[in-house]
Amino acid sequence: MPKKPDTVGITVKKDEDFSEWYNEVIIKGELAEHSPIKGFMIIRPEGYGLWENIQSFFDKRIKKLGVKNAYFPLLIPESFFKKEAEHAEGFAPELAWVGDKEEGEKLAIRPTSETIMYDSYSKWIRSWRDLPLRINQWCNVLRWEVKQTKLFLRTREFLWQEGHCVYETEEECEKETKLYLKEYKKVCEELLAIPVLEGEKTDKERFAGAKTTYALEALMPDGKALQMGTSHNLGQNFAKAFGIKYLGKDEKERIPWQNSWGFSTRLIGALVMAHSDDKGLVLPPRVAPIQIVIIPIFKSENKEEVVKKAEELKSKLKNYNIGLDDRDGYTPGWKFNEWELKGIPLRIEIGPKDIEKNQVVLVRRDNNSKEAVKIGQLDKKIKDTLEDIQSSLFNKAKKFLNSNIVDAKNWDDFAKQIKNKKLVKTFFCGGVDCEGLIKDKTNGATSRVIPFEQPKESGKCAHCGKESKFLVIFGKAY
Amino acid sequence: MPKKPDTVGITVKKDEDFSEWYNEVIIKGELAEHSPIKGFMIIRPEGYGLWENIQSFFDKRIKKLGVKNAYFPLLIPESFFKKEAEHAEGFAPELAWVGDKEEGEKLAIRPTSETIMYDSYSKWIRSWRDLPLRINQWCNVLRWEVKQTKLFLRTREFLWQEGHCVYETEEECEKETKLYLKEYKKVCEELLAIPVLEGEKTDKERFAGAKTTYALEALMPDGKALQMGTSHNLGQNFAKAFGIKYLGKDEKERIPWQNSWGFSTRLIGALVMAHSDDKGLVLPPRVAPIQIVIIPIFKSENKEEVVKKAEELKSKLKNYNIGLDDRDGYTPGWKFNEWELKGIPLRIEIGPKDIEKNQVVLVRRDNNSKEAVKIGQLDKKIKDTLEDIQSSLFNKAKKFLNSNIVDAKNWDDFAKQIKNKKLVKTFFCGGVDCEGLIKDKTNGATSRVIPFEQPKESGKCAHCGKESKFLVIFGKAY
Repeated sequence: MPKKPDTVGITVKKDEDFSEWYNEVIIKGELAEHSPIKGFMIIRPEGYGLWENIQSFFDKRIKKLGVKNAYFPLLIPESFFKKEAEHAEGFAPELAWVGDKEEGEKLAIRPTSETIMYDSYSKWIRSWRDLPLRINQWCNVLRWEVKQTKLFLRTREFLWQEGHCVYETEEECEKETKLYLKEYKKVCEELLAIPVLEGEKTDKERFAGAKTTYALEALMPDGKALQMGTSHNLGQNFAKAFGIKYLGKDEKERIPWQNSWGFSTRLIGALVMAHSDDKGLVLPPRVAPIQIVIIPIFKSENKEEVVKKAEELKSKLKNYNIGLDDRDGYTPGWKFNEWELKGIPLRIEIGPKDIEKNQVVLVRRDNNSKEAVKIGQLDKKIKDTLEDIQSSLFNKAKKFLNSNIVDAKNWDDFAKQIKNKKLVKTFFCGGVDCEGLIKDKTNGATSRVIPFEQPKESGKCAHCGKESKFLVIFGKAY
Repeated sequence: MPKKPDTVGITVKKDEDFSEWYNEVIIKGELAEHSPIKGFMIIRPEGYGLWENIQSFFDKRIKKLGVKNAYFPLLIPESFFKKEAEHAEGFAPELAWVGDKEEGEKLAIRPTSETIMYDSYSKWIRSWRDLPLRINQWCNVLRWEVKQTKLFLRTREFLWQEGHCVYETEEECEKETKLYLKEYKKVCEELLAIPVLEGEKTDKERFAGAKTTYALEALMPDGKALQMGTSHNLGQNFAKAFGIKYLGKDEKERIPWQNSWGFSTRLIGALVMAHSDDKGLVLPPRVAPIQIVIIPIFKSENKEEVVKKAEELKSKLKNYNIGLDDRDGYTPGWKFNEWELKGIPLRIEIGPKDIEKNQVVLVRRDNNSKEAVKIGQLDKKIKDTLEDIQSSLFNKAKKFLNSNIVDAKNWDDFAKQIKNKKLVKTFFCGGVDCEGLIKDKTNGATSRVIPFEQPKESGKCAHCGKESKFLVIFGKAY
């Protein structure tokens, strides 16, 4: 017997138990589930389809910027990690070692690929003619130190892309480090409809081994920030550690400049949190693997006619990724619930009465609005509606973000606003120790970004009262 | 200073030292190289571009057949391997275990994903409504027992796709097991221009845990067969081992039927061997990441005019993946060599004299033929030439394959032909022990396929003289 709606629907409300709601939306929406092995997840087809759309959007764009994909080994020798001291220290607790088989030194499953890639770069790069070198890798990585698993957000293994570029000059390197951050912003805002804050990381939050880390942060509905992507200007740190040199146009041996940049399947977690509701997933049309589902409404005596009309409709709307649910044994109401749970942006209902009137009924997933549309106007109406869903989701999230960034001039204010689950914009001394104390005292607030736009004048650090280095946005984060 | 042609070109002849020639073509063509870790390879952008084209061709086709992509964990618990006895035994020597971190049982890096996927399938599949279930995964796998590394062909880690489907009936399962083999044949023959033999594997060569293994075999120019892809009918072996059951339309609990099918980056190795020559790579146009390279021939005084014309040409030919090499400091001859080394199917030369005559010169990579073509006829000429290159490469390889399959009626003949590096078609008893003896006596010949087309009458096994079970093609293999 078909499952009943009340057994498949979401049983927890988003504003009552956010964490449990998130789990249910993902598991019942069949995006992913926990693996029997602690800390690992299985990405199911509906979840992987989202990842494929994110990949496709981004991959095309970076290829136009001259980036090429490659693939480096999964296992990295211990000696490679040790070459860049900060990097080695940063990743030491994360590494899983392959045990009983190796003949030489210990091998770690990659937590990120700087070291193994730059060993090759040191052999590949000879002269300025070989630069810029822009390589990206789509792969799985493993970071063992995950305390509490959260699907898409905190798992030991995740999928990601990591870009690794080498440049002749510091200026070019810095310029492109920021360029990839802009590309990430496009993924977040244009594809996923998630507004982001952009800026630099403080010394404490910087990537292990980088000179500067740029990051995008989004605000989730539970008041926690989520890092959406990072782009690191590595300076010459790794080039020096791995002996990457090039012969300049001036025939002198020079050390190049490098960046690395990555985002991961955690973007899918952000996507779920940002838009979904008590009925389940809500997917922005541009990233939805299925954008429209047609549900023919029939009884056994008119099934043939209605389904035929629905199929005609489907073949007419071939510019969209479209599904048709003509299964027997499920009521239309059951089907509505199922496709709402799965977040399909637009539903088309068509029954015998609609056929008589030469119309269909369009139902939006995001706001549940329902409208009868004449077949002749359907094409334009669908186009406009999908665009409107995309921008409505973005605008709603943008409004939420803007209304949750507050200023704090002193410590009491800071602590209170962090408690209120706000992102707090404040002057900060930049000290690693000071930031550590802030984290301890607030039960976990960390600096998220130093916004690119800074006031002309400095102020006093909200925590220690010293002269500030910059204005920083603090918050609790995933 | 630019490198000279004689230092970058291939220094070994294909028919003198095939193995060394293969290595040079791959390394100098920048497709891949050895990693500092034994048994691993680095797939460079030019090699990865081939993989991306193979992926794209195949992925689109299987999606049309209803297959969806997903992602399962890299690490598999020891207990999962033990559930299907033959599978466990077959893969035991291949496994790399993750050592010092795990809290529970030992975890192996996946050599293939049957076990971890079917554990999930046992939870996902409830009724006939959930079937057929068709899931594919693009991922890396690790098989430790590699004696001698050979780029793309024998490495501990490789990239592949693995499809895993579940069906209600044995018939449907068998039908689709063969359908995916047909899809592999299309990849080999239509995309890579490599003709293949198709058939079933003998008991000895069957996949560990399968009921039947179907395979495609290609013949490499050195007389060795190369397995291009396999599709396994798993019967109910894994379903029973993993407790996969479904409620049939008749409301009875039933055990479903399964298949799994895979091909890997070794296809790139086959591609290199099949078509390339003493000047380097030769790529069939359909799989070539760059199909055409334009080389403007200029001196400093006319560079601007010639390059401008070349750029115009490039933007006109936007239906092709096209490169333009307008670098200074390299002679045209040097550039010709470089792009020939990299296997670009078609070269367009354009110089001041060509501009005067409103023509360009087309040079084919496969046969080196050179032809002046008027600009007005270029579009059609390029289309025809690329198609002709594709089919010429296939036909040449097909002729080679056909002329190297010989019959053997008795053991002397068999042994002699194997020594002559032929694929030997012979009656065979099917015995695992008999096949083991054949392998020992011939220094490595194994059964490659039992062709689908079999004679009506049986004969005597060429080795043991017993009544034959089928006609089999034997050969030495990679």
